[in-house]
Amino acid sequence: MIFDKEKAKDIAADHCINDEERALIPSFAEVCSFLSEFPSELSWKTKKNNPIKPDPNTDEGLNILASKYFESYRRSDFPAEPSTVPDEMVSVIMEQAYGYTAEECKRIKLEHQYSMCAENCVGNLLERYINSKLSKSHWNWCCGEFVRAVDFIGRNEKNEWIALQIKNRDNSENSSSSAIRDGTRIQKWYRSFSKDTKKGRPSFTRWDKLPPLMQGYGLNEEDFKKFVTSYIAKEKTKK
Amino acid sequence: MIFDKEKAKDIAADHCINDEERALIPSFAEVCSFLSEFPSELSWKTKKNNPIKPDPNTDEGLNILASKYFESYRRSDFPAEPSTVPDEMVSVIMEQAYGYTAEECKRIKLEHQYSMCAENCVGNLLERYINSKLSKSHWNWCCGEFVRAVDFIGRNEKNEWIALQIKNRDNSENSSSSAIRDGTRIQKWYRSFSKDTKKGRPSFTRWDKLPPLMQGYGLNEEDFKKFVTSYIAKEKTKK
Repeated sequence: MIFDKEKAKDIAADHCINDEERALIPSFAEVCSFLSEFPSELSWKTKKNNPIKPDPNTDEGLNILASKYFESYRRSDFPAEPSTVPDEMVSVIMEQAYGYTAEECKRIKLEHQYSMCAENCVGNLLERYINSKLSKSHWNWCCGEFVRAVDFIGRNEKNEWIALQIKNRDNSENSSSSAIRDGTRIQKWYRSFSKDTKKGRPSFTRWDKLPPLMQGYGLNEEDFKKFVTSYIAKEKTKK
Repeated sequence: MIFDKEKAKDIAADHCINDEERALIPSFAEVCSFLSEFPSELSWKTKKNNPIKPDPNTDEGLNILASKYFESYRRSDFPAEPSTVPDEMVSVIMEQAYGYTAEECKRIKLEHQYSMCAENCVGNLLERYINSKLSKSHWNWCCGEFVRAVDFIGRNEKNEWIALQIKNRDNSENSSSSAIRDGTRIQKWYRSFSKDTKKGRPSFTRWDKLPPLMQGYGLNEEDFKKFVTSYIAKEKTKK
């Protein structure tokens, strides 16, 4: 079976419910083309009742991949409601070590939960933001997290694949390593420093250090902030 | 070379600076005896200028292990000062999603950092607490984190080794897996549930579910809280 890009686009179109989603069809097709060439880069948890991984060279495989891709795009990145039960021992330590009152600890406990929920969104919002700026470029968003440890793929001037892994901070968890990343074609970028190691550092973000092929699209912190504000406001109206 | 437990105790004694530490000598010797029997369970990061792992069957190895063991015991588990730079985008999300003011977000940001520092102590304090209650039992604290994924070791009535891994919560990070844990002699226990999945659950802690050989030593949540309060208060006076 040979990969059929037009077929991938047709199948993707069946999964789209609006123009915003349809704008992602070319990216989906590129991602599938990449996976067809490097099948081992597909990251897919098989289920007991469905032990076969989707094959981008078949209609069935493309349908499964498109479903995951667009459902993931549709999923809201508005911060979730806290679902964990706070550990009371943390409040005990806060009182004893820092002198907060029991009353303050009650409030802090709740706000700490909300902070964690907000934190958990930033990475996804960063991917959404970059996609929103690069969707008309040669970069393709690997939405749906089924390309192993890769967030965007594109091609360089020699038409070779370039894979990009982005992280929000230098201390974000590492994604599982990947075979192709041992080559030279994987690029990594993280948005921000978590520690103030260099005194006098002008900024904690690294938009000026974007990989060369990602430069020139107007990606910057101020614009990211606008994107986040507008995205969260829009999602809030859906609640 | 055969493991010499008396030698291990003698060397440990040279590393102790007070009675509290000397009370741990038998535990240290047992841990070394275990590692002598199961050398692959030693978890040790070698350094470039010192690529050899310590061997509990030699004086030199025992000295290195004792140094790590007692230095680790001496290290304070008072919460550290926050060292990470907060991500401003979290505050942007907090304002937009939950309606906090910019002023509130400044305070929340700081308290969230302190909460994380306090959280990071609980696991260590839990080990210290359990050791304080079991130090006169047949259980031995694997202080210093050089026994792979094991926190306490002891022997059952058949004189077989029993290894115990404790975690603070059911969602704490998993330690690296270990060969002996595939057998039946590894036991795991975690202190608390992170989620309220069972409605009407009377408690979020699991002191009533301690492994049988750890029961009967008066370990319980109220007592743990007292230990934490007193430990933090004591460490605070040293600041």
